Amino acid sequence: MATTGHEHTVKAFDEDIKHLRALISQMGGLAEEAIRDAMIALQRGDTKLAKEVRRKDKAIDAIEAEVEKLAVRVIALRAPMADDLREVVAALKIAAVIERIGDYAKNIAKRTPLIHASDGERIEAISLLPAMAQMAGDMVHDVLDAFSARDAEAAIRVSERDARLDDFYDSIFRTLVTYMVENPRTISEVAHLLFVAKNIERIGDHATNVAEMVYFAATGQYLADRDTDTAEN
Amino acid sequence: MATTGHEHTVKAFDEDIKHLRALISQMGGLAEEAIRDAMIALQRGDTKLAKEVRRKDKAIDAIEAEVEKLAVRVIALRAPMADDLREVVAALKIAAVIERIGDYAKNIAKRTPLIHASDGERIEAISLLPAMAQMAGDMVHDVLDAFSARDAEAAIRVSERDARLDDFYDSIFRTLVTYMVENPRTISEVAHLLFVAKNIERIGDHATNVAEMVYFAATGQYLADRDTDTAEN
Repeated sequence: MATTGHEHTVKAFDEDIKHLRALISQMGGLAEEAIRDAMIALQRGDTKLAKEVRRKDKAIDAIEAEVEKLAVRVIALRAPMADDLREVVAALKIAAVIERIGDYAKNIAKRTPLIHASDGERIEAISLLPAMAQMAGDMVHDVLDAFSARDAEAAIRVSERDARLDDFYDSIFRTLVTYMVENPRTISEVAHLLFVAKNIERIGDHATNVAEMVYFAATGQYLADRDTDTAEN
Repeated sequence: MATTGHEHTVKAFDEDIKHLRALISQMGGLAEEAIRDAMIALQRGDTKLAKEVRRKDKAIDAIEAEVEKLAVRVIALRAPMADDLREVVAALKIAAVIERIGDYAKNIAKRTPLIHASDGERIEAISLLPAMAQMAGDMVHDVLDAFSARDAEAAIRVSERDARLDDFYDSIFRTLVTYMVENPRTISEVAHLLFVAKNIERIGDHATNVAEMVYFAATGQYLADRDTDTAEN
């Protein structure tokens, strides 16, 4: 054997980290796909696709469980210090956030039959949402790229886009309320669209949370003094 | 020294677990209080109390960070096995869920000024929500008691109450929509109440998630084959 025990441990740790990162990339890809498919299902009233989104969410949940198991094992077996520990804990937390993003997408998909139930009439207000969802999905995509590249600056740029998404949400909220006032027959359906808009806005919040975790993992510093409220707004 | 090295380790681990449990009890107490105060603020239009709820949420977040730090340290230093590891991981996850419950309460509090903004007119529909919030708050209280007592049966009983809370939500959703149709001038305010109702329903979902974690920590089995959707509905 040319490697010492220490080198062996370091190598094994690097392999574990690589595996954790691969799992998170995979989760992220599935979450992005879920957002996209959920919005398509919603717009087209495609309940079959909506069901597919719900079914695939189980895959995201399963990968999260795998990340958790692996991260806990790495901490217990290798007792990593400082930077390494920060990286493993970040992986654990980021996986939990992506799982939630998947849940939001699933929830959007679930509303498909509720929005198209009444009489096949198309609710115009729905046309506002895809652009918002695209913006949120892009944030998810870019923050996972930042994670892969351990790029703290890219993470900051993602977090800065959340304010625009919030503005978009506020504007859609007002538009939907106006639509309800003018079309009282559609209030129930449009109320579901309000929740969809809120879910999209929450996806942006979670992408921002991930950005903060990426920043912390990369630098050991908190992306501080910014008003990035993590509340369920 | 009368204790062996092994006994010392076991004792230290027990102390750590006790500390983790105490932190979680404390978080739980704060979360219950936050739910209660948020509802009082909302009903009375008490924006000062609403701000207080938001301020106190930082204490919940801080305890969660402490739980995370301690749990990771315990896993790394003591490399617990089987039951013990399950217990530490459960503590880590339960703390994260309570933190989210606190966020929901904070979010309810945040809507206080939005609901009372228009013209001081009282929205009758608001009177439906406190009973629902009480039901959700009781679930949070009882599931944390189950955690303290490591009582798997009590955890099951909490999880079984979630269906009733969901029915309550559905009924409130319909009532609020009807109210909007009949009082179009209040649509914007009542839309915020819809989100409040949804937040309360989500608190129940999270209490149910905790019940599942308590059950798993106590028994090593999953509270399986029950349709406990963890999605953001």
